[in-house]
Amino acid sequence: MEDKTIRLQLSETKKEKPNSDQLIFGRAFTDHMFVMDYSDPLGWHNASIVPYQPLMIDPSSMIFHYGQSVFEGLKAFRTEDGDVQLFRPEKNLERLNRSSDRLCIPPIDEEFGLKAIKQLVAMDKDWVPDADGTSLYIRPFIISTEPYLGVAPSRNYKFIVILSPVGAYYKEGINPVKIAVENKYVRAVKGGTGEAKTGGNYAASLKAQEDVAKGGFAQVLWLDGVEQKYIEEVGSMNVFFKINGEVVTPKLNGSILAGITRDSVIELLKHWNIPVSERRISMDELYQAHQEGLLEEAFGSGTAAVISPIAQLSWEGKDMVINGGKTGEVSQKVYDTITGIQYGKLEDPFNWIEKVEAKSAVKQ
Amino acid sequence: MEDKTIRLQLSETKKEKPNSDQLIFGRAFTDHMFVMDYSDPLGWHNASIVPYQPLMIDPSSMIFHYGQSVFEGLKAFRTEDGDVQLFRPEKNLERLNRSSDRLCIPPIDEEFGLKAIKQLVAMDKDWVPDADGTSLYIRPFIISTEPYLGVAPSRNYKFIVILSPVGAYYKEGINPVKIAVENKYVRAVKGGTGEAKTGGNYAASLKAQEDVAKGGFAQVLWLDGVEQKYIEEVGSMNVFFKINGEVVTPKLNGSILAGITRDSVIELLKHWNIPVSERRISMDELYQAHQEGLLEEAFGSGTAAVISPIAQLSWEGKDMVINGGKTGEVSQKVYDTITGIQYGKLEDPFNWIEKVEAKSAVKQ
Ligand SMILES: Cc1ncc(COP(=O)(O)O)c(C=O)c1O
Ligand SMILES: Cc1ncc(COP(=O)(O)O)c(C=O)c1O
Repeated sequence: MEDKTIRLQLSETKKEKPNSDQLIFGRAFTDHMFVMDYSDPLGWHNASIVPYQPLMIDPSSMIFHYGQSVFEGLKAFRTEDGDVQLFRPEKNLERLNRSSDRLCIPPIDEEFGLKAIKQLVAMDKDWVPDADGTSLYIRPFIISTEPYLGVAPSRNYKFIVILSPVGAYYKEGINPVKIAVENKYVRAVKGGTGEAKTGGNYAASLKAQEDVAKGGFAQVLWLDGVEQKYIEEVGSMNVFFKINGEVVTPKLNGSILAGITRDSVIELLKHWNIPVSERRISMDELYQAHQEGLLEEAFGSGTAAVISPIAQLSWEGKDMVINGGKTGEVSQKVYDTITGIQYGKLEDPFNWIEKVEAKSAVKQ
Repeated sequence: MEDKTIRLQLSETKKEKPNSDQLIFGRAFTDHMFVMDYSDPLGWHNASIVPYQPLMIDPSSMIFHYGQSVFEGLKAFRTEDGDVQLFRPEKNLERLNRSSDRLCIPPIDEEFGLKAIKQLVAMDKDWVPDADGTSLYIRPFIISTEPYLGVAPSRNYKFIVILSPVGAYYKEGINPVKIAVENKYVRAVKGGTGEAKTGGNYAASLKAQEDVAKGGFAQVLWLDGVEQKYIEEVGSMNVFFKINGEVVTPKLNGSILAGITRDSVIELLKHWNIPVSERRISMDELYQAHQEGLLEEAFGSGTAAVISPIAQLSWEGKDMVINGGKTGEVSQKVYDTITGIQYGKLEDPFNWIEKVEAKSAVKQ
């Protein structure tokens, strides 16, 4: 990055903002977007905030053919005194670059990327909703744009950030879900792209998701791709189990996404002196623990829901009901603490919060 | 598909055609493209041939985030008497629909898809080069276009066909290549998307390819994702080994792409009464055969090169030189026969050729 100025082109019209109670995840977008180009001799350049608009892309561009792309997902929260703040955003930029490395995409300057995100959010600050549990979802992503049909790393990319106001994930209190353990399809495998946040992993997951939805399950629990024995993660969440007083989560092994919520949960548990261990855990072990009455809680962790308690796990025809289908104590405590910090209702002893400077916000 | 008419919108200007000897794979595109839309209530509709042009796509469109896409690759060949013909194109449309099924993409009417391809090629017939070994590469692909950030099958798609004149793969006779056996990265695994022609598989392959290129290798040989022991395929080709008089190719197991060239090679070998078997084959077995002097030939098969003989395989520090690094007899015979049929120089006993009606071709 030679030129680190961000050009501004303001939107001439303002879109109508959806009502707080009618926000649907990922359907409405704000007035502006951030765009930056990459080309071979220039590196990343042309950083600009422009009106939200369609992209003009050649049909031969690599993104349409060979899936070379990465993305991130984080949120901006409005506090009671009107501030707008981000939760551990530097972790998302770090992970974006790790994903890019696996996909042969050139890294971006993380500090500059964060500055761009903050400036964009500040610009569209009025889009950060203030009703309980609502937020502004931030989607940074990189796509390969070289117009060339060869299977090789692209020589052109676009880094784009778009923003979408989202409603409360839980409208009437936390809602534990039924999850099916996936035996047929595999999301990722050792040596593959599982630990990168890249489109192909999500494309690969659609079929399994579609199959289990018919049985009334919210998500699938993925097992490892080698033996289909060890627990990996749930849909777009990492997963935790409280077994006989200890909280266990699968160890990062190369095929699991390193969730930022996962990392925060582990840090909190340690802070509270609740035993927590990152290790390999098989479905056999989990089932055994359940049979012995030792599986006390289970929950997913991710940016969307923060914590999603698991009411029931179904595996090879066996239904394991967990904690009577209700939200467990630890699940609730972790949820309350993380959301409390995110919305500025609780102190932030871990330095997880990054304020968005609102100086460029345009009041309307 | 209710409405099966193809609307035509002719290009007002004609691009300059590259010289036959300056054709680079996948860089130049013809004057027109085929586009058809899918939306939830309408199904596939709006089939049209339009001037080749950039796509206008919302930045929230699923293709940029979750990789839901499939593609195909085939070629049109010019015969000595000026006809233009395709090689087993119905197989590509069949495979496109199989790939789509894995990716939760609605199928297209295969007959109509073939008609569209033929009409587009006929329209841009003058772009089919006539120098030896040249052809017109045809790239049908489907991308998910719903502007929505949820991880779910898209409700909107575009089916697009673009055309690119390509040069001779072998400019000075067949050129055997050095291949590295990949031990670290995995392209696909049982239960994954390996047998679908979808972007994510190719994105996953870039890193391994980049690593071995530094060592002077043309491609990687992929092993299975479970044990990393059994041979799967090579880069964008299937792979064959002649061992002690028998030709062996890995059996289609769910993680290998069912190549159309592969299928043609098998049919030819059977026709010639050359023993051929589709079965699981490990690197251990292959190495053993090589040590005993029984590994007589090795070659990749695919639309791009038809046959790509393997001069050397490198595996765990061991270099296996095959047939003295030269093109084997069977490799050459298969190559000559398939290309002979493709260019109309040999008879077509298998009914592999489909003529393109040239009625709408505009001579310039
Ligand atoms: C596959 C997958 N696993 C886990 C997560 C959770 O990660 P995070 O806590 O950073 O949101 C996500 C998504 O965000 C995901 O897509
Ligand atoms: C992964 C892969 N394997 C094999 C092949 C060979 O298939 P076909 O002979 O149909 O071209 C291709 C591509 O074309 C491919 O992309």
